[in-house]
Amino acid sequence: MFRPEIKVLDCSIRDGGLINKWRFSDDFVRANYIALSQAGVDYMEIGYKASPVLFDPNEFGKWRFCRDEDVRKVIDGVELSEMKLACMVDIGRVQSEDILPFHESPFSMIRVACYIKEVDKAIALCNMIMDKGYETTVNIMAVSTSLEREIDEGLNDLSKTTIPSIYVVDSFGAMYSEDVTFLVKKYMNALPGKTIGIHTHNNRQLAFGNTIQAIIEGANMLDASVYGIGRGPGNCCVELLLSFLQNPKYNLRPVLKLIQDHYLPLRNEIEWGYIIPYMITGMLNEHPRTAIAFRDSTERDNFVKFYDQLVTPEPEEQIIKGFQKSTKP
Amino acid sequence: MFRPEIKVLDCSIRDGGLINKWRFSDDFVRANYIALSQAGVDYMEIGYKASPVLFDPNEFGKWRFCRDEDVRKVIDGVELSEMKLACMVDIGRVQSEDILPFHESPFSMIRVACYIKEVDKAIALCNMIMDKGYETTVNIMAVSTSLEREIDEGLNDLSKTTIPSIYVVDSFGAMYSEDVTFLVKKYMNALPGKTIGIHTHNNRQLAFGNTIQAIIEGANMLDASVYGIGRGPGNCCVELLLSFLQNPKYNLRPVLKLIQDHYLPLRNEIEWGYIIPYMITGMLNEHPRTAIAFRDSTERDNFVKFYDQLVTPEPEEQIIKGFQKSTKP
Repeated sequence: MFRPEIKVLDCSIRDGGLINKWRFSDDFVRANYIALSQAGVDYMEIGYKASPVLFDPNEFGKWRFCRDEDVRKVIDGVELSEMKLACMVDIGRVQSEDILPFHESPFSMIRVACYIKEVDKAIALCNMIMDKGYETTVNIMAVSTSLEREIDEGLNDLSKTTIPSIYVVDSFGAMYSEDVTFLVKKYMNALPGKTIGIHTHNNRQLAFGNTIQAIIEGANMLDASVYGIGRGPGNCCVELLLSFLQNPKYNLRPVLKLIQDHYLPLRNEIEWGYIIPYMITGMLNEHPRTAIAFRDSTERDNFVKFYDQLVTPEPEEQIIKGFQKSTKP
Repeated sequence: MFRPEIKVLDCSIRDGGLINKWRFSDDFVRANYIALSQAGVDYMEIGYKASPVLFDPNEFGKWRFCRDEDVRKVIDGVELSEMKLACMVDIGRVQSEDILPFHESPFSMIRVACYIKEVDKAIALCNMIMDKGYETTVNIMAVSTSLEREIDEGLNDLSKTTIPSIYVVDSFGAMYSEDVTFLVKKYMNALPGKTIGIHTHNNRQLAFGNTIQAIIEGANMLDASVYGIGRGPGNCCVELLLSFLQNPKYNLRPVLKLIQDHYLPLRNEIEWGYIIPYMITGMLNEHPRTAIAFRDSTERDNFVKFYDQLVTPEPEEQIIKGFQKSTKP
């Protein structure tokens, strides 16, 4: 597929940070920056920008906050990169003073993730971000659990804004290609002139296939991560996506080197990929929080117990409490 | 997707045996038989039927030969199973006397795998198999590397036979959903009245997605394996497929138990899944033999070296010779 409008956004550090509380070393983040630049990736999302008033810097690594000086440190001296830097903000977790004007900042893009009910808050935040000079996107999470009426209303509100890009996000890894087709078409129709993005999760090994389906339907902003890193099953693998896209500006080799040098060792320390409890939450179109708790329990490989509990009508908190927490770090 | 014509064939032992030379214990095969029966799977392919004259029984496990008495031993006493047993034969590697008449055998189906150039030999073998009373299929391998003219000619020959099912096989894990659509439609048009099957490999994490695409286009015989077991990247996961199919006769729970009790331990002994060298052979639409040799070498995780060698024009044997063989068993 060669469509010059297509852009790839790598979200390895931002989404992968959900596993290790964004405690990536500077060397690791710098290696990502260099390799992804060489690979021709268009954007690298280097973390969340959050207010240190709201999160404890002793608990969370620096990519939870993305202070401009920390970002500058890892990109300093890397020449010839045309890759733009992005970060994500959550509604209510960032303050205007955390975001410098565009020309004083290393960032080009600041993305806003929201649920469908929060679209109007997201619009207000995006307006502030755009006023400061940045590119922005709205990533509407968990649409697989939203009523079509709500989605239509949210898209209608977004259609009246100057926000350039709106994402279909399969937060729970629950969608099939037909769902992707349905939603991308809906977004394209409701948001003429805007770019449609796709962000998938790999609970059922469909992240790459669904991204291809979104491309076929017209999505031009594609999220992916190195070796699929991300909480639980992770995301669409950027190496798969680059091997699919025919644009000669993309180059697979630096990503392969990044995987062998940095991601294979990391994968031995922290877990992501095809893991049955996340497959089950994906199948049930549910938030992965039960699977996260279960994988952190002593019975982490008792898939049948997990399945039995999730298909019974017990409340979720009750289920999570029932998992004996592991004493392993 | 609920279409009553759809049948699921589990090929775990047959395709997984390519990793360990079919040296599965009787207990393991029996556990598969019981769990897959309970899960409502329609067919279980329990191995290859090959002549012991052509393969050394000291080197290969019993599921390379599928002697009827060995099969009877693992299914003996299991009641209430409606699952049919299948095995595969290769052209030139089985003799008529190896195949008993249907009513003396535990098998219901004997499948024939062939390359497109061998279709007429496959037809002759299928005629012998059908004469003995069995169901049969022809699985045309490696069509992603065949010229359309050859495929059309082979399908034309098959259209004149009484062979009931013909498979699209993505041997190299190279196909995208659009390729699956193209081939399944072609097979459906060329073979009116016959069942079309799909057998995918997971080199690029597209095995399940491509199987769904084949279902959408009308394929009704679906190959899959438990936890995706199979040489290299493996196959479409049967647990994913059962979670997709809406037919109430399918039951996921026994497969989850089988995975936790038998496949998690096995996966610690033998390797399959998303492995970068196989991703690369899939991307290049090549047989995985270079990746197999590379994963058996001391440099198995040097993905960049593997990539560099495969994208240069060196002959394949030369590439394989260049990998320093590992001394590990």
